[in-house]
Amino acid sequence: MPKGVVEASPADGLTTRQRRNRPLVIVHTGDGKGKSTAAFGLALRGWNQGWSVGVFQFVKSAKWRIGEQSALEALSETGRGGPIEWHKMGSGWSWSRKSGSEDDHAAAAAEGWAEIKRRLADQTHGLYVLDEFTYPINWGWVDVDDVVRTLVDRPGHQHVIITGRRADPKLIEIASLVTEMTKIKHPFDEGQKGQRGIEW
Amino acid sequence: MPKGVVEASPADGLTTRQRRNRPLVIVHTGDGKGKSTAAFGLALRGWNQGWSVGVFQFVKSAKWRIGEQSALEALSETGRGGPIEWHKMGSGWSWSRKSGSEDDHAAAAAEGWAEIKRRLADQTHGLYVLDEFTYPINWGWVDVDDVVRTLVDRPGHQHVIITGRRADPKLIEIASLVTEMTKIKHPFDEGQKGQRGIEW
Repeated sequence: MPKGVVEASPADGLTTRQRRNRPLVIVHTGDGKGKSTAAFGLALRGWNQGWSVGVFQFVKSAKWRIGEQSALEALSETGRGGPIEWHKMGSGWSWSRKSGSEDDHAAAAAEGWAEIKRRLADQTHGLYVLDEFTYPINWGWVDVDDVVRTLVDRPGHQHVIITGRRADPKLIEIASLVTEMTKIKHPFDEGQKGQRGIEW
Repeated sequence: MPKGVVEASPADGLTTRQRRNRPLVIVHTGDGKGKSTAAFGLALRGWNQGWSVGVFQFVKSAKWRIGEQSALEALSETGRGGPIEWHKMGSGWSWSRKSGSEDDHAAAAAEGWAEIKRRLADQTHGLYVLDEFTYPINWGWVDVDDVVRTLVDRPGHQHVIITGRRADPKLIEIASLVTEMTKIKHPFDEGQKGQRGIEW
């Protein structure tokens, strides 16, 4: 067969252009490092395409990821690519009037997901990074069937990246691209402590 | 044992501060996606720390990674974090006067490594991203023993990230942090083609 000739096209009724531009659900899972970091790396590509990028961090600590947050916000301010919004759950989401109870993480996670659903319906962003979103799902704070249904039915051309350990099999099922990050060796094993520039 | 109390310190003769700030060799390997993307994500953290970051791309094609390159160069220009340099092998390195033969990749790879050795000796950068560097090593264009010796003996506080498939066991041996990215599912499996914003 001559080089560059595809033997058979998928029988999915789509044109090459449609297949090329299909919006993806991407999952980064596993116990190793790099799940979130690679998601933020993809945000750089989205920014360069001029896409609106929304990052939603489903973790409590504001210390981690500050490097990425500062960098993506600085990039957004250059105005040379797409706008980047960074929202973290912490003690209440930035769009919320409620100061909220610091302890009600379940309610905060549900509120975060409700906002993401609204944005998906409105086609607010070209790329969504749902960082550490597997945890509120696994803890039962967000209904996985609702997530799956919403992602499958989302309109337009919106890419969604979900990171976190132990991704639910239902998420894996509907995702187009799933990568598992596995720890082979970690400095914490040798008594190394977390350090700036590397862990945050 | 009370929470937060470490049972035993490693018997390496280092203080906690020395252990905290030990420079790392980081390897991202495996057949999955995210190896380079996660490395560029770490570059965001380094930038935020004000470190000088040097990216060295040991691949021919200039098409891939353009999103990351544009983003990191735009960040560097904001002047709000550390300076970021991006060098790619392509048809000759940017610092080289030689236009070079497009076909002599072995010589170009060796030249790239020689430059990185000089910079490590001069402590030019706080963070080095040697993207796809496992390939010239595995093809015998760069001597792995020379790489190992140079990294182990490098002066000062310089972090080095190496990405690429099939990292040499000698590299794994001297690395502090090794993550393997494994493909669980990839859209190419379903006839999906590469698309902008996702693959580059």
